Amino acid sequence: MEISARNVFTGTIKSISYGEILAEVVIELPGGLEITSLITKSSAERMKLTEGTGVSTVIKASNVMVATD
Amino acid sequence: MEISARNVFTGTIKSISYGEILAEVVIELPGGLEITSLITKSSAERMKLTEGTGVSTVIKASNVMVATD
Amino acid sequence: MEISARNVFTGTIKSISYGEILAEVVIELPGGLEITSLITKSSAERMKLTEGTGVSTVIKASNVMVATD
Amino acid sequence: MEISARNVFTGTIKSISYGEILAEVVIELPGGLEITSLITKSSAERMKLTEGTGVSTVIKASNVMVATD
Amino acid sequence: MEISARNVFTGTIKSISYGEILAEVVIELPGGLEITSLITKSSAERMKLTEGTGVSTVIKASNVMVATD
Amino acid sequence: MEISARNVFTGTIKSISYGEILAEVVIELPGGLEITSLITKSSAERMKLTEGTGVSTVIKASNVMVATD
Repeated sequence: MEISARNVFTGTIKSISYGEILAEVVIELPGGLEITSLITKSSAERMKLTEGTGVSTVIKASNVMVATD
Repeated sequence: MEISARNVFTGTIKSISYGEILAEVVIELPGGLEITSLITKSSAERMKLTEGTGVSTVIKASNVMVATD
Repeated sequence: MEISARNVFTGTIKSISYGEILAEVVIELPGGLEITSLITKSSAERMKLTEGTGVSTVIKASNVMVATD
Repeated sequence: MEISARNVFTGTIKSISYGEILAEVVIELPGGLEITSLITKSSAERMKLTEGTGVSTVIKASNVMVATD
Repeated sequence: MEISARNVFTGTIKSISYGEILAEVVIELPGGLEITSLITKSSAERMKLTEGTGVSTVIKASNVMVATD
Repeated sequence: MEISARNVFTGTIKSISYGEILAEVVIELPGGLEITSLITKSSAERMKLTEGTGVSTVIKASNVMVATD
């Protein structure tokens, strides 16, 4: 599957914690970068996400801001 | 400045291209990962962004999706 | 590929129009519903999108608002 | 009321489930398509949303991604 | 019309500038606060937006970040 | 720190309420306008946000919709 989002990075789930509706997923990318994702709990369960699962993080370019010091 | 967005990564601007209203900015992170950002042209000009500028990319966790093959 | 976004609908591209940085894509779903998507021009070109292409529209649940009269 | 979001679809609430802060609302559109929305619990209560309520789903074009197999 | 977005503020259009696909709209709120919105050009035309038009700005709570110095 | 988001408004935290994963923060701006933000609980704790804390609200222009009656 190809997706219009410009930022697709492969990594591995480092941790996953659940609320009633949401799941907070921390994904480790090659080189040690960690990205935090907030998805619905039912999606995390549907996709059988657990620590160690190989995943891609998908981020639209319009959702990436730029900051300078 | 600290921001509630969970994903703040430092990098360097690799390229920047302009439309009439938008600017497409490619940022290279340590380790070679490249993130594409879409911001308004006037923000890019206000912040004097050019190739080589040191920046941070800022991404809300709720804007990061997870995909599996 | 499975994605955490809860709303994935298959359809066909009805029209696509380009600006300098963006592409406006109208997708027709079964039953005649039309969804408009705004993606980057380079994504549309990378994915070789044209009228008649079979696609899926992908929408995070947190980006769907509800309104009442 | 008219809104700049390009995707406004009328439908009926099929189900609504609550967490502490969020509400997950499934809306059935004519033709059987189901859209899942994530809004705040207090908005769902303010708007008195229940199963069977007639609503519109509102989605910005820039929040609709396109994917191909 | 009532909408699930938590932040709805009335104001007046101060300026509007067009690209090929987008329109950048600056809205002045009571008390002098100015909010910039980026919508599609066709929405701006559909809604006949011009300087002086009375409008509401609509912002989902999940799209509001918090920063501290 | 400068950020590409076009809408940065200073204010004071009026209230903050927690779920398991999220925090709902109401910020009062000069002139009495109140903006509601939804951030992760861990960000609110990391930033030591409490009632009375001076903050900025940060909103991308592309996340601001316009509505007319």
